[in-house]
Amino acid sequence: MSSPKPHEDYSNDPKWPPHFMVNKKQPFNAEPPPADLIKSFITPNHNFFKRNHGPIPDLDPHSFRLDVVGMVETPLSLSLEQIKKMTKVTITATVQCAGNRRTEMHKLKTVKGVGWAQCTLGTAVWGGVRLCDVLKLAGAKSYEQGAKHVEFVSVDPCSEDDFRPYTVSIPMTKASRVHEDTLIAYEMNGEPLPREHGFPFRIVVPGYVGARSCKWVKIIRVQAKESDSFFQARDYKSFNPMVDWNNVDFSKATSITDLPVTAGILTPVEGQRLPEEHKTVTVKGYAYSGGGRFIERVDVSTDDGKTWHTAELFRDEGEPNRVWTWALWRISLPKPAGAFQIICKATDSSYNTMPENIAPVWNLRGVVNNAWFRVNIPGASPKL
Amino acid sequence: MSSPKPHEDYSNDPKWPPHFMVNKKQPFNAEPPPADLIKSFITPNHNFFKRNHGPIPDLDPHSFRLDVVGMVETPLSLSLEQIKKMTKVTITATVQCAGNRRTEMHKLKTVKGVGWAQCTLGTAVWGGVRLCDVLKLAGAKSYEQGAKHVEFVSVDPCSEDDFRPYTVSIPMTKASRVHEDTLIAYEMNGEPLPREHGFPFRIVVPGYVGARSCKWVKIIRVQAKESDSFFQARDYKSFNPMVDWNNVDFSKATSITDLPVTAGILTPVEGQRLPEEHKTVTVKGYAYSGGGRFIERVDVSTDDGKTWHTAELFRDEGEPNRVWTWALWRISLPKPAGAFQIICKATDSSYNTMPENIAPVWNLRGVVNNAWFRVNIPGASPKL
Repeated sequence: MSSPKPHEDYSNDPKWPPHFMVNKKQPFNAEPPPADLIKSFITPNHNFFKRNHGPIPDLDPHSFRLDVVGMVETPLSLSLEQIKKMTKVTITATVQCAGNRRTEMHKLKTVKGVGWAQCTLGTAVWGGVRLCDVLKLAGAKSYEQGAKHVEFVSVDPCSEDDFRPYTVSIPMTKASRVHEDTLIAYEMNGEPLPREHGFPFRIVVPGYVGARSCKWVKIIRVQAKESDSFFQARDYKSFNPMVDWNNVDFSKATSITDLPVTAGILTPVEGQRLPEEHKTVTVKGYAYSGGGRFIERVDVSTDDGKTWHTAELFRDEGEPNRVWTWALWRISLPKPAGAFQIICKATDSSYNTMPENIAPVWNLRGVVNNAWFRVNIPGASPKL
Repeated sequence: MSSPKPHEDYSNDPKWPPHFMVNKKQPFNAEPPPADLIKSFITPNHNFFKRNHGPIPDLDPHSFRLDVVGMVETPLSLSLEQIKKMTKVTITATVQCAGNRRTEMHKLKTVKGVGWAQCTLGTAVWGGVRLCDVLKLAGAKSYEQGAKHVEFVSVDPCSEDDFRPYTVSIPMTKASRVHEDTLIAYEMNGEPLPREHGFPFRIVVPGYVGARSCKWVKIIRVQAKESDSFFQARDYKSFNPMVDWNNVDFSKATSITDLPVTAGILTPVEGQRLPEEHKTVTVKGYAYSGGGRFIERVDVSTDDGKTWHTAELFRDEGEPNRVWTWALWRISLPKPAGAFQIICKATDSSYNTMPENIAPVWNLRGVVNNAWFRVNIPGASPKL
């Protein structure tokens, strides 16, 4: 029997949390149960969703180097130790997968991609150095000098991209401005990055789709153009609902950067039977918007959207367009008789809202589903 | 007969364009006809919507001074001549009123405010000096030093605010960062600012709601807090649709800054009868999003949203989050038999979309209506 190829050998993967909702085992893709995600504003490392494209790299922090190359005066090759000697910052940021809530979209009409419920996001305190400080150290060319993008190359070969290591890019404006808070992180919630979250280094791009927050980053390349990688150029884009795999042209759409406003209900969950004697129902969830836009309001309805009730919000305050975290929310409402549907919709600080239905935002890759979140609650059990 | 009070004397107003759709005569509030607005990417001065709170000031450019005060080292008092000697920049930006499309909202349920159709926006090349340059000249304190807002005070007393001159503010982050492009403008499309557009000076805040682009600006005040003026604190905010004038608390909502994605159809117009012999219908319109987010896509449907067709876009390219202009679009589609409705919806670069219906975003002030834009086309005339 031949041994598996490195990109197919999952024998060295970490021990995975047994209580997660597993969407794919190899590579491991799983999200925490809603009841766990709602427990705290900061998501503990063990409750953070796991999104992978291959076996988990196992890198030696002593020999591993992060290379800064491309349109720079002084290419760098940095060890973990060297990076730790630079000015450390911590940024609290929510990271959300573009495919969060894909399963809802898939139920309407088949989409391509790992199925995800509403828990493919989490909020952590990321510790590390500012990418802009490292770019300065390398003497990176500026946006005005033609260095319009920064590419991140990982070490994990991805089958989707002919086993090219996972590669993405972000605009230089997001990389180089101090208030944009893009990080090279080596800590997550005060601990060294867990292996599956990118040890020893990962990028964290606050306000952007999780796909840009490249784990196990090995090369930072300053360049004129957006990356031509699969994950930048031929994935993580949305289209008109009529576009299918026969006529899709990925060059026609923009790579997802900052995410649209969305929300999820975490309790109660779909189909949950509520105690008959309860007169009220307490609804809890999250809401999030990209680009640093904060959550202005979450409205909840139990009568199909005829009446809306504004939930109590728990959110970070911050500079305009620099709130990188989700809001958690809760509301107690009179429990309607019989079966009913709970709907929530969020409004962000730009007064963007969520679309009522999935169909008009349906897309073949099942990304950026931010339709009203709905949970169906059954009526009382029939008396026997 | 006593002479009218200054704030009620409209005898010195400019001659108004006779072809405009007039929503209020005194103060003059009017928008161009859709057929005029669609004619060009840059809106000629005479076709720009007119939004006023009182008689049009008639200021002497020789004696008028713009004062820069508050948290500054060196208060300034600048003449038009002095400002013209500073580095001039031109910024092309769309300015849209928060009440654009208010009439649609009003038809669903009464709202308070001047009625507006879909033409309360326009795009101009604004010439002037960067606000950040003037703030630097005055030695303004920074955001980090506690100067978190910049207030603009005009000269026109507003009945809504007990005849306090029109006053608003923007965050220092928007005022002081060069790439945010906030201007003190003295030119509009290459001409001196027309009187009704703010001669000799106005503020232009690209990507923000028009209300912040203060005309006839007299005082620029650097301060710790958001303005407590009517137009900042008790107006230009949106609420849950259940909030009415008996229970509204303006302190609970955020002032509108950058606008949500919206769109309008400019041709054909509501109720327009199309020539029976035409086999196709050509639909044209605009789409716009605030915060520098560009328009990714406009989708059009003639079958109640079952099928969507992507329109051809005319838009500016630009830095991420620095596209300040609308997109114009057009599409030709087979003309359905009988009466039908044309629907358009836009998607911006954050993949935010427009809500399907007005009801869930209805608010008592009738602002930020960005529901799908719909035009009803009647069937053929009955044969006589």
